Amino acid sequence: MIKKGIAASKGYAIGTVFIQEHEEIVITDKKVEDIAAEKENLKKALEASRVQLEAIKAKAVESMGAEKAEVFEAHITLLDDPEFTGAMELEVDSNSINAMKAVENVTNTFVMIFESMEDAYMRERAADIKDVSKRIIANLAGKGGEGFAITEENTVVVAHDLTPSDTAQLDRSKVVGFITNIGGRTSHAAIMARTLEIPAVLGLGDITKAVKTGDKVIVDGITGDVIINPSAEVLAEYEAKKEKFRAEQEELKKLIDVKTVTKAGKRVEVCGNIGKAADVDQVLANGGDGVGLFRTEFLYMDRDQAPTEDEQYDSYKYVLEKMEGKQVVIRTLDIGGDKTLPYLPLPEEMNPFLGYRAIRLCLDRKEIFKVQLRALLRASVYGNLCVMFPMISGLEEFLQAKEVVEECKAELKAEGKEYSEKIQWGIMVEIPAAAVYADELAKHVDFFSIGTNDLIQYTLAADRMSEKVSYLYNPMHPAVLRLIKMTIDGAHSQGKWVGMCGEMAGDETAIPTLVEYGLDEFSMSATSILNAKKIIMEQ
Amino acid sequence: MIKKGIAASKGYAIGTVFIQEHEEIVITDKKVEDIAAEKENLKKALEASRVQLEAIKAKAVESMGAEKAEVFEAHITLLDDPEFTGAMELEVDSNSINAMKAVENVTNTFVMIFESMEDAYMRERAADIKDVSKRIIANLAGKGGEGFAITEENTVVVAHDLTPSDTAQLDRSKVVGFITNIGGRTSHAAIMARTLEIPAVLGLGDITKAVKTGDKVIVDGITGDVIINPSAEVLAEYEAKKEKFRAEQEELKKLIDVKTVTKAGKRVEVCGNIGKAADVDQVLANGGDGVGLFRTEFLYMDRDQAPTEDEQYDSYKYVLEKMEGKQVVIRTLDIGGDKTLPYLPLPEEMNPFLGYRAIRLCLDRKEIFKVQLRALLRASVYGNLCVMFPMISGLEEFLQAKEVVEECKAELKAEGKEYSEKIQWGIMVEIPAAAVYADELAKHVDFFSIGTNDLIQYTLAADRMSEKVSYLYNPMHPAVLRLIKMTIDGAHSQGKWVGMCGEMAGDETAIPTLVEYGLDEFSMSATSILNAKKIIMEQ
Repeated sequence: MIKKGIAASKGYAIGTVFIQEHEEIVITDKKVEDIAAEKENLKKALEASRVQLEAIKAKAVESMGAEKAEVFEAHITLLDDPEFTGAMELEVDSNSINAMKAVENVTNTFVMIFESMEDAYMRERAADIKDVSKRIIANLAGKGGEGFAITEENTVVVAHDLTPSDTAQLDRSKVVGFITNIGGRTSHAAIMARTLEIPAVLGLGDITKAVKTGDKVIVDGITGDVIINPSAEVLAEYEAKKEKFRAEQEELKKLIDVKTVTKAGKRVEVCGNIGKAADVDQVLANGGDGVGLFRTEFLYMDRDQAPTEDEQYDSYKYVLEKMEGKQVVIRTLDIGGDKTLPYLPLPEEMNPFLGYRAIRLCLDRKEIFKVQLRALLRASVYGNLCVMFPMISGLEEFLQAKEVVEECKAELKAEGKEYSEKIQWGIMVEIPAAAVYADELAKHVDFFSIGTNDLIQYTLAADRMSEKVSYLYNPMHPAVLRLIKMTIDGAHSQGKWVGMCGEMAGDETAIPTLVEYGLDEFSMSATSILNAKKIIMEQ
Repeated sequence: MIKKGIAASKGYAIGTVFIQEHEEIVITDKKVEDIAAEKENLKKALEASRVQLEAIKAKAVESMGAEKAEVFEAHITLLDDPEFTGAMELEVDSNSINAMKAVENVTNTFVMIFESMEDAYMRERAADIKDVSKRIIANLAGKGGEGFAITEENTVVVAHDLTPSDTAQLDRSKVVGFITNIGGRTSHAAIMARTLEIPAVLGLGDITKAVKTGDKVIVDGITGDVIINPSAEVLAEYEAKKEKFRAEQEELKKLIDVKTVTKAGKRVEVCGNIGKAADVDQVLANGGDGVGLFRTEFLYMDRDQAPTEDEQYDSYKYVLEKMEGKQVVIRTLDIGGDKTLPYLPLPEEMNPFLGYRAIRLCLDRKEIFKVQLRALLRASVYGNLCVMFPMISGLEEFLQAKEVVEECKAELKAEGKEYSEKIQWGIMVEIPAAAVYADELAKHVDFFSIGTNDLIQYTLAADRMSEKVSYLYNPMHPAVLRLIKMTIDGAHSQGKWVGMCGEMAGDETAIPTLVEYGLDEFSMSATSILNAKKIIMEQ
């Protein structure tokens, strides 16, 4: 039997089904008599949860990089939140409610609040809260910290959904693939699968019912097919496909130190996107020519206050030094839209994607902007730095941003602090106006980086997070392609270079067109770099 | 003394200040003993409010047209709403609360609910509710229905803000201008002032404190200046300006029957935008060459269910017949975004402007779309009909919409019902993709109409309703102008015509550029037509 799902992580897995079900724990309304003892139970369960999460985090940093592991830091922070775990204790204390029920009550309230929020980032938090709550309850029931009891080699995990902590705990020596009922290409599970390089097919509907533990399955992470109990013939066919894929991956590794040159002889840079300084290791390990996008907002998230100039300086310096003179493009703070910060209240807007965010916010809140610019300037002496401003809609904004840079330079000079004069200053081209006006903007900037995710959304007026219109989100829409070409032509007419740091840059089907248009730099997830190099060299 | 505000309605007014303050009514917590009598008081006040609102509505239809008067129909509907006025009665009945307090309590609850809503259209409802509530309370206090006690000629009304019912009651034979503390160019008061052709300056901050009744003021509705107790010299200067303006307006009237031809000899159509069938009279009275935009969503609003095919047919037929063969462009339903309907629940979206609306909704809900298309087809035999689809982002959507049209034609043919084969089928160009791809789209459509309001928002990724970023909304941004030119050039390359129905079409500063680009049709508020004709003829 063949089931069709969403191909979420490339490759082929052939293995034995393990149905992952969280053991059901019955929670009663029973009141407790010994309140002190119950509070102690809760405290121990919270402690156990912390120990487990620290271990999962450490494992995740190793297997997936610091950025992807960040979610567990958020989980750990939740354990310290007085409004969350403090409220649980209060429930036990004041109402004699048993600890499990107390956890459940507080969780329900929080989930309700977060799920009703407008902000996608906040809504995602509801999933984090549920994940942590499940863990605390399991620990109260004495069933926590077990992870998967997977003992067999070549296991394919089948689940309704996989939480971040489920995914991080998968034993890569035994788990060869996973398939789920729900989720899409951009879900947490999909992102983690790609990072772990485990083939995965998601959104299969009722796969947990269609198979049983012990079934043989083939997971085709390229077409999205899942074949249950295949015939010997089909099995042989997929064994061959799998071997071919493995050999190709092996071949790709040879490209790590190869410079990327197209058939026409054009040298192209293939770089990595990073969110945390530590992620730079993965870029280097995959043969990245540089960092094409350092999303600095991660420095600002999951904290009580903004990072200081020195904290930021340390991060930027670390990346620049690690890259040893290779180009590092750092994007200034892009907050707002679907990303908010607890210490930076933003106005409520009907359409946050069309609102107060990124450079708009930074030019309005110069005191925040200047801290980052000073850190960038100071770090610039340690490598080859490019700085770019997000959400630029016209020349005025770029010139204003440059004025703030000049202010910071003057301050640093007065303080006797060094900075490099070789920094390149560019903009993200992610608003249609910037693409349409690229030839004029190119007279003033040092480079462009095309942010396709937003550019596509604005060009087609379609929010890809909105279920009802995400079908319109199409990187190959002829108007999108024209805007990309206008941007590249505009830059080249002024002798400037153009990169691309949206998802499209790593998309196999888009790369040939982008090479044809003359794109100079491609930046993507570290794990996509080698394959992109290969495809570019074939053009 | 000169105060600077927002010029909201053109022209000069020189007159005497009348400060409009609603008399304060003290509302107590006092319980009532004779509940039956208090309920009777409430009933009488509601009846009195209805009579007043009916009178205001009748006056408004006459002075401002059916579309603008629609707001009073909504007010009257509120009086019948069991959840609103019914709840007031219940408060009196169950809790012995006096009627004024009951009105206040229910109003506060409603206002709180509406003001917290995401949807701008719903938030505006809070203002309507307050306006109606004030009226009911005034009637309970025996102070309702008096309107303004303006007895002097040449009065300039000064107010904190003017509600729709305040504005509709202004006696145009005595009131020559008005100025307010709050409000902007797109506020209710501004729109009404322009429709009534009364000069107005809004958003002056504290003008109600800066002047007193009896002061002499000059209202400069062109620069936004308000001059308090001017010198004889300044007065004379403005008397001259005012006379010149009046003479110009008189001159404009001569253009009513003149065909608009540019200096280069190009014939240009200058048309009117309408929201209700009855508004067509104002277009004709102002010399409109046709209707460039009939926003059909008003047919769907303020109702419990969608209008039937026959109701729509009657409206379209009325307009086509009234226009006697002049071109009428009807836009199919553009609901969603900031416009919602009580009987058509929409998904909650983070960015409704980038979401499920207009043609996206119509193609998804064909049963709604077909009712409108059938009505349009049937009405087409009565005049010169053009139909356009809103929010088209690519060819596929236009072709799908045309397929639905073909379905409707086949049905009508089978039913023996007539339709014209001469209908022109076009699209709104309001999504950047459509402008960028205009040359290809032009091969398939009969015409384009550029919707600048949305096109500017998407091109600059700036919601003009968002206070923090509305400064970015700039019709003369070079990228916006390029997209307009690409649209016109694209259409002309295929021998198709292009209109514009956004606010920019009536903007004096934009018209010269639009004429230079070769725009074929301009469509705007009826009251702007004559001035636009004049400017176009000067190019």
